[in-house]
Order: sequence, then structure tokens, then C-alpha cells
Amino acid sequence: MEIICIGNELLIGKTLNTNASWMAKKATSLGIQVKRIMVVGDHVNEIASAVTEALDRRPRFIVTTGGLGPTFDDKTLEGIAKALKRKLGINERALNMVREKYETLAEHGKLEKTELTPPRTKMAKLPETAEPLSNPVGTAPGVAMNVDGTALLILPGVPSEMEAIFEQSIVPLFRRESGDTAFFEASVYVDDIMESTLAPLIDQTMHDNPFIYIKSHPKAEEGEPHIEIHFSTTSKNPKTARNRLGKALIQLSELVQKKGGKIKSQKKRSN
Amino acid sequence: MEIICIGNELLIGKTLNTNASWMAKKATSLGIQVKRIMVVGDHVNEIASAVTEALDRRPRFIVTTGGLGPTFDDKTLEGIAKALKRKLGINERALNMVREKYETLAEHGKLEKTELTPPRTKMAKLPETAEPLSNPVGTAPGVAMNVDGTALLILPGVPSEMEAIFEQSIVPLFRRESGDTAFFEASVYVDDIMESTLAPLIDQTMHDNPFIYIKSHPKAEEGEPHIEIHFSTTSKNPKTARNRLGKALIQLSELVQKKGGKIKSQKKRSN
Repeated sequence: MEIICIGNELLIGKTLNTNASWMAKKATSLGIQVKRIMVVGDHVNEIASAVTEALDRRPRFIVTTGGLGPTFDDKTLEGIAKALKRKLGINERALNMVREKYETLAEHGKLEKTELTPPRTKMAKLPETAEPLSNPVGTAPGVAMNVDGTALLILPGVPSEMEAIFEQSIVPLFRRESGDTAFFEASVYVDDIMESTLAPLIDQTMHDNPFIYIKSHPKAEEGEPHIEIHFSTTSKNPKTARNRLGKALIQLSELVQKKGGKIKSQKKRSN
Repeated sequence: MEIICIGNELLIGKTLNTNASWMAKKATSLGIQVKRIMVVGDHVNEIASAVTEALDRRPRFIVTTGGLGPTFDDKTLEGIAKALKRKLGINERALNMVREKYETLAEHGKLEKTELTPPRTKMAKLPETAEPLSNPVGTAPGVAMNVDGTALLILPGVPSEMEAIFEQSIVPLFRRESGDTAFFEASVYVDDIMESTLAPLIDQTMHDNPFIYIKSHPKAEEGEPHIEIHFSTTSKNPKTARNRLGKALIQLSELVQKKGGKIKSQKKRSN
């Protein structure tokens, strides 16, 4: 799976990319591996390039966020249409979704005119063969397309809208793809051992535990070492996964203590 | 400028990519435009691909973070050497930097052995023609290379180390490149107007203010609209920039009020 985030606000450092990490965490927990995250600005050519490059790597899923709204700088669908050499046109199902949203808002007295102005109609202009995904909390529908075996899933950038469509329409796809495979992780925090001393201990533990991936995350400078050691594995069987994690965690903890390191705390989490 | 962030922790959603937004904000404020951010995992081939692709777009700067430490999964320099078809070898200046760090730690009684073990020496193995950048707060030096007119700047992933090397070695490069050009921005928050109603007002204001970029950021669903409108411009002259921002901000505020929108607050910021 690849993630493409679209929005100048990410490239000027105005907005922290919480969408990417939310999606990455969610996909990982469902057993879907994220291979790359790309961030591009609100430019048709940049969006088209990023989508073309991602499609060339033939991932099973590409999820994009951002650029689906009614303003001039919402250019995601235009960029994707360009990448795929498909035309953009009104999708009747999408137009109905947008119309119903504005009618509901008007019924609740939140809107005077339900008129489908060009900025509103814009949200229903999809590339040919695309299907809209209903947006439970906002106006712009998500979009799904199949491109030579890659499911291209296009979501808005407002976090509440992205998350709602993701939960409703993408989680079931991911579950079907990964079967019951899930991601399991555990962390141990160690003090008084430097990362450079830890390195061969991690090597040995990974060698002895071939299904476990271990990564050290230094939380302070080498001089006052405080390091998180993160263990992870994927498995269809939660018990197998927890046993594997436990075994590797114990082995590495013992090696660390032999070298004078202190184990500070353990945290285990299964998704 | 392009940013490449390296680390599995970003792809599993364990770590929020604050490094990317810190660097993007810093570069933008210095008048350097970030065109793309890529995130890849701790895999030599993935790192090599991302670097090759970024170099092919010939940006003036590529800054990478992550993967410079002493452990097996710190693979950035290996990936870059592969992308550039250069060999990795001990760089004497880098080795001296690493040696001095461990000697200082030993002098302060924080370390028994200053021995340059393979994991420690690893941090001084740079691609041919690369130069180390001194790391004021950690052990692994940063690395700078010139590749056909692109400055490839390679920083650690620990935020305090990345920021210290960036401030010391990269900020001066960026200042020299951009001259006195700086980025200026201002925001206004509006209520009671929908983004789809706002869209044509933004179009008109941008048309009348050709040096100003305006982007709306909905902070709630379309039904209860609360929207940030963000204005930005770049200029060598702060006064010109502030006048431009002020003019566009006033024009759009008036248009919003005519449509029944409420201006909630204004925030102006110059870097």
C-alpha cells in the first residue's frame, strides 16, 4: 500500500501530517503494509506524477487524502484524471450524494440555498469508471477506482471526513485482503546502555527470532542513553505472535542487563 | 527542495512525522520552497529508489533524515551509495568526529570504553566524495554531497540532532540560496459561510492580488462551517509583503461579510 497526501499546507510546515500516520497505523494494524508515503502540493502535474509513480510500482492499494473540496485549489481528481488519461465528468451517484447533503443542511435550517453552484457540482466530477464513496460526515464524496489491479482510493483531507470514509469503505477492503493477519508490537525502554553497544545485541536477537523485527529508537543523546526498543511481528494467530514477542523481549532484556543496561518498563500492545 | 524521511516507524504510524514539518516550516520561512516529501522504510533499495527519483527531478536541495545511527537498520548511507553507484568507505574526518564524541563521553565518566567497535565505525563510513557535518548534540555526523548541482544533505532522525545540524550547517546554505527572500503569511477565521460559497470569493481575491496565494482550511463539517483562510506570499521586502497580505485580507473579509459570513479573528505572522 502507498499513501499520497495532497496539500500545500503540508509542504510549508503549517500542518502536521496526522492523516498519514493515522492511516499508516490503521492499515498496519489490519495487516496491510505501507511501503511509501508521498506528500505533494496542490498542483495538477505534481499530483499526476505522484499517482503515476505509485501506480508503476503496482501496489495493491493507493490511498490519497486531500484536494477533494469545492475550491479552486482542490485539484486531486484533475491530477488523477491526467495521470490515467481519463476524462472528468459528472457522476450521477456522486451528484446525488452532494445534492442530498445540501438538502439535509437546508432542512436543518443551516443553509438557505441548496442550489448546485459550480463549486458544489465540482465535487461530483469524477474520472470515468470511478465510483463515489459516501461521506458520512462531510460533503465531498470519496472516490474509488480500479487501475490494473490497484485499488485507487481517494479521500478528503479533513481528518474527520477522511477517517469516517476510511472506516466505512476501506477497512472492509483491507480486512478482505489480509485475511486474519494482524500486526503485533511491544516495546521495552532501556537506560545506561548506548545504542552502539546495543546494536550487536539486537542483531543476535533478530538472528535467533527470525519472525521478529526489532528497531531501537534513541530518546536522548548518546551520552545519557534512554532508548526504546520496539519489537514487531505479523501473524494470523495472536497467541503465536505474543509468544514470539515475549521470547525475543526476554532474550534481548537479558543481553542488555548483562552489558549493564537497565530495563525501565515494558509495554505490550496488540491491535 | 525535496525531503526524504527514512524509517519504518513512520510507515507503521508509530511516529508522527514532526521532522518533515519542522524542516518544511524552516525551509519555507527562509524562502526555500519544498516541492515534495517522501517517506520510505529502512530498506536499501527503497532508500536508493527515493533518492534516485528525487535527483532525477534536479532540485537544488534534497534533505534526508533518519537511518544514520549505529544499528543494522540504519541503512541510509548504504542506500545513497547504491543510488549514486559510489563506494562506502571510512571518511577520516567523520571518524575523528565519532572518536572525539566517545572520548568526551569517557572523560565525563559516562562511558568506560572508547573503543571504536564496528557499530561505531559504521557511522563514519560515507560514500566517496561526501563530507561529514558536525553533530553538536549526538554521535552520528550528518553528511553533505554535491550530485550534479543538487546538494544532498543527510541528517539523523533523532529530532534534537536533526535540528542542531540543520541550524548549524543547512540554514546558512538556504540563506545564501534565497538571498533575502522570505515567506509571509496571515490567517483569518470565518464562521457561518460554507466552503462552497467561499470558493468564488477566494477566486476573485486571488485574481485581484496576483502575488497572494489563498487556501481555505475547513475546521469542521460543511454544516457548521468554521474555516481558516490562509494567505501567503514571498518577498524580499517585508513591508511589501505585509501590505499585500493586508490588502487581500481586507478584500476577502469584506466579500465574506457581504455573503453573511462572520470574521472571527485575524492572525498575522511574518517569519
